[in-house]
Amino acid sequence: MSEVAPDMRELGAELRNWGRWGTDDERGTTNLITPEALVAAARLVRTGKVFDLGIPLDGDGPQPGGNRINPIRLMSENGQEQVLPGGFKWADDYVFMPLQSASQYDGLAHVHYDGQLYNGHDGAGITVKGAQKLGIENQSKGIAGRGVLLDIARLRGVDWLAAGEVITPEDLDAAERAAGVRVGPGDIVLFRTGYRAKFLAERDPQSFMAGEPGLGLATARWFKERDVAVIGSDNWAIEVLPGEHEGALFELHMVLIRDMGMTLAELLDFEELAADCAADGVYEFFYAGPPLKFTRGVGSPINPLAIK
Amino acid sequence: MSEVAPDMRELGAELRNWGRWGTDDERGTTNLITPEALVAAARLVRTGKVFDLGIPLDGDGPQPGGNRINPIRLMSENGQEQVLPGGFKWADDYVFMPLQSASQYDGLAHVHYDGQLYNGHDGAGITVKGAQKLGIENQSKGIAGRGVLLDIARLRGVDWLAAGEVITPEDLDAAERAAGVRVGPGDIVLFRTGYRAKFLAERDPQSFMAGEPGLGLATARWFKERDVAVIGSDNWAIEVLPGEHEGALFELHMVLIRDMGMTLAELLDFEELAADCAADGVYEFFYAGPPLKFTRGVGSPINPLAIK
Amino acid sequence: MSEVAPDMRELGAELRNWGRWGTDDERGTTNLITPEALVAAARLVRTGKVFDLGIPLDGDGPQPGGNRINPIRLMSENGQEQVLPGGFKWADDYVFMPLQSASQYDGLAHVHYDGQLYNGHDGAGITVKGAQKLGIENQSKGIAGRGVLLDIARLRGVDWLAAGEVITPEDLDAAERAAGVRVGPGDIVLFRTGYRAKFLAERDPQSFMAGEPGLGLATARWFKERDVAVIGSDNWAIEVLPGEHEGALFELHMVLIRDMGMTLAELLDFEELAADCAADGVYEFFYAGPPLKFTRGVGSPINPLAIK
Amino acid sequence: MSEVAPDMRELGAELRNWGRWGTDDERGTTNLITPEALVAAARLVRTGKVFDLGIPLDGDGPQPGGNRINPIRLMSENGQEQVLPGGFKWADDYVFMPLQSASQYDGLAHVHYDGQLYNGHDGAGITVKGAQKLGIENQSKGIAGRGVLLDIARLRGVDWLAAGEVITPEDLDAAERAAGVRVGPGDIVLFRTGYRAKFLAERDPQSFMAGEPGLGLATARWFKERDVAVIGSDNWAIEVLPGEHEGALFELHMVLIRDMGMTLAELLDFEELAADCAADGVYEFFYAGPPLKFTRGVGSPINPLAIK
Repeated sequence: MSEVAPDMRELGAELRNWGRWGTDDERGTTNLITPEALVAAARLVRTGKVFDLGIPLDGDGPQPGGNRINPIRLMSENGQEQVLPGGFKWADDYVFMPLQSASQYDGLAHVHYDGQLYNGHDGAGITVKGAQKLGIENQSKGIAGRGVLLDIARLRGVDWLAAGEVITPEDLDAAERAAGVRVGPGDIVLFRTGYRAKFLAERDPQSFMAGEPGLGLATARWFKERDVAVIGSDNWAIEVLPGEHEGALFELHMVLIRDMGMTLAELLDFEELAADCAADGVYEFFYAGPPLKFTRGVGSPINPLAIK
Repeated sequence: MSEVAPDMRELGAELRNWGRWGTDDERGTTNLITPEALVAAARLVRTGKVFDLGIPLDGDGPQPGGNRINPIRLMSENGQEQVLPGGFKWADDYVFMPLQSASQYDGLAHVHYDGQLYNGHDGAGITVKGAQKLGIENQSKGIAGRGVLLDIARLRGVDWLAAGEVITPEDLDAAERAAGVRVGPGDIVLFRTGYRAKFLAERDPQSFMAGEPGLGLATARWFKERDVAVIGSDNWAIEVLPGEHEGALFELHMVLIRDMGMTLAELLDFEELAADCAADGVYEFFYAGPPLKFTRGVGSPINPLAIK
Repeated sequence: MSEVAPDMRELGAELRNWGRWGTDDERGTTNLITPEALVAAARLVRTGKVFDLGIPLDGDGPQPGGNRINPIRLMSENGQEQVLPGGFKWADDYVFMPLQSASQYDGLAHVHYDGQLYNGHDGAGITVKGAQKLGIENQSKGIAGRGVLLDIARLRGVDWLAAGEVITPEDLDAAERAAGVRVGPGDIVLFRTGYRAKFLAERDPQSFMAGEPGLGLATARWFKERDVAVIGSDNWAIEVLPGEHEGALFELHMVLIRDMGMTLAELLDFEELAADCAADGVYEFFYAGPPLKFTRGVGSPINPLAIK
Repeated sequence: MSEVAPDMRELGAELRNWGRWGTDDERGTTNLITPEALVAAARLVRTGKVFDLGIPLDGDGPQPGGNRINPIRLMSENGQEQVLPGGFKWADDYVFMPLQSASQYDGLAHVHYDGQLYNGHDGAGITVKGAQKLGIENQSKGIAGRGVLLDIARLRGVDWLAAGEVITPEDLDAAERAAGVRVGPGDIVLFRTGYRAKFLAERDPQSFMAGEPGLGLATARWFKERDVAVIGSDNWAIEVLPGEHEGALFELHMVLIRDMGMTLAELLDFEELAADCAADGVYEFFYAGPPLKFTRGVGSPINPLAIK
């Protein structure tokens, strides 16, 4: 299993993608999704089956309060009181929500340390008005490409991994072999811990948010070697919590987002997709998950589609 | 040009799709996007060029006040005050917005008349809690398929059509011919009036919202004959405003949404896509525009991708 | 202690104030605060000591999630990025909150049963747009008058009463005697359970909201006999929870608000005021607690002042 | 009429109240409302007439869009779908609004310049989380005391003054004489420009917000000499707009708030009060206008009461 976790700052320096796509780059690893990769990914649509990976946006989500809340959608019009020409009746609704409250992208402005964001952009540029650089709008033309599901829970033969359980590079290798795929440049890698199944079974936000199984710090090298474009998960923070050593706090976030320039997709639902992959043995598909274009936004709610 | 517009209720009765996909159906014309159609649509990805059709979600949008407002995104954390283990700094943001404030789907619960919604669902089911039936979550597995751009502004040789200018079935035929495509079952038809260009040129929300060029009522038959799945536009309400006769108020909305069960996509930006289509002569593409899964929601903000 | 609680509907019929202030009345018992009563109340300002009875509006309040949330206040401007003539820098903030999230009035539209609101107004008049009748704006000219503190926790010699502990008419009599006051027409009666002290000591919203000590149903007669204008409390729902019999759900709310037309003030903080009253033996004061004028609103956040 | 307006920074230095109430003070001129002043103010309640000075909080307010919006109040429950024990039905509502959207206090953190806030507090202390110092919660025990109405519009014999029309110290003197009062320490001075009447007559937010009649810079000395606690107005920014010289931008805000430590009350409605004062010749009254206790908030919506 996991060795001693690497030092975060050393690892960050080792894996850093700064300058790789130009000194002004604000997109990071989604640059790896080339037009050729996209064309090839579209060829994975073979049967026309669609899987929606977003979780519902409503009051029954996993974040009922605290720093974040579940989305609150309220009706402004429902037509019942309207008396309009031709009998026309219309309904509208409003939402108030954290951009991080349900299935979401963590944009590249979401995390920084030592005064710098990805690509050396100034950490002070995250102001009361949002992200002067690296806003989620930089990912507007994405995120679409080849998706690959690595089903760790299935690999381990459990409904879900436990909070604190570390996923290692070896796990990723084994899941890849089990899936019969090879993860490569520009891929969108979705790994399943079963934690969505846990939430659906228990409906206990406190337990769900108290910790989680997830990636260990050492997996960052694996994702760099493979030149993955985006990592997505069914837990709420990609990485294992509590962390791998005393005092570790979102160290993988720091390396992936700030050093590598990786956009993360969290709080996804892979249950239906995973069952289908297990049934037909096909763990690759076309992934289409465009973020909303929140100018200077730190993230975006999403409902990505996996299409086989 | 346009004849006398048909009577809305007669036209609705003529074109009604109620029961066509079962008495309980809540999806309407998106049922027309079959797995086969989806597979074929994915084959349209030939060069890997991506066009993002959503407009920015920020305070500079076209709806600064009144029934709807532009999205208001505010930071809850920017990291600057945080003192956390390992130097971790994170940023989060919140949004308050109408689900109808920028690029959006009008779901099937958005419009009703004579006490009934699409497929005969009860109009009283749109309550303070939202849509008991026909909520936007019913479109969660979509909306993806073959997209076709009909560039009416280009056809007429103008930067944009004027408010009140009617687009007729003959215009659609002509645009189709000019594009070298044939619109068919399950297609997502995007028609361009140039009104987005007008907004970008003038930045005048009052003028933009005061009226618009758009579809005349008679086009409903055209869309029914072709069995189109979704109609999208770069104006804010699909149909021509003011309407085609004194007192006409969103009559095409009523026929398309309530009678035909058509999901509409509004306030899109086709400028870059249209320029590309004019350049390469290819007006069809893969369209991927999943809505967010707002439970019982009337609509959803979107950022659809057109991929060629 | 408490006898068998009276039947709610019988009690409501007995105590009903419908028509008392006219068939169109939308103010209810605040009509009891006459100009003369107000002049007399102002004479209670003798030393100029001020007590603010509102609780803070922030994320540390007692309602972190569920049907209601704590207020979420976010900055829209803080001046740090502004470059304006004369060096002017300004800051603004936004709030999203339930009108019922902290110290608040329950307006007369907050509760109804059997199809009717206070004074026979139609229950169906509470629509998606708010209260067609009995909106909180009807209390705009109030609520100010003579306040009286009945310190039940002090009377019982406890820091706070326990959840489920019933306050009876005899308790009110005893607290009145201990306070050396006589509650009369138009008074604003504040009763202290100590539950605010519990929250401040424990900071446990779940425990605070799980139940509460409060008024038993029989006290409604006491408040009617004394012709009290407003009842205020330091718990979150005035009445005892769980209720006095199996299945009882906010029965006192129904009688007080819907039958008697009583505006309620909840989630107040009497800790400083109660200590001062115990020290100087003066339990009456001038109370000034104007609601915000939310048109058609069901309630309003408040910060009432008690001035001695 | 007005001489050349004084230099803002010189005037600020001249009138500065920094250190006057201690180096840590966060309340400013509301310190001038002494217990004795409050007792005396309460004696002004002679007839029990109440005037509510807040404007309605709804979509018809003067700030429909831009930096601020009118309050958006939406129902979360209206009872119509509820099936609960005893037939209990309840209604709740949410609001999203700028704290500066209707009748409001500008707290002492609202404005700063040259890196400092009132009393030398650090301007950098206004962060994404709000005001580390000088938050509106520092005024929680207020604001109540003697109110005085200076009716400038009546003095000039107009329905309302025009945008850009300057109110001078001489105007204040004249209005005081006409009112038969003497403004003194700790008073809450409300001056009427008639601009609320303009808004009610025209219902034109653009015209209302485009400029306003208001105080000239020189009046700051007058308010300092009289040691006024709070200034309130029926315009939206207290001071004349456009300013008194080319490029002047909220200079009086800077002097009053940042140098003098003055809390301002804006967007009030004095129409009913002014008519009553004109009728009975009594221009002084008890003012009770507590802010909501928004922790670290920059301001608060209010509905102050004037009681005669």
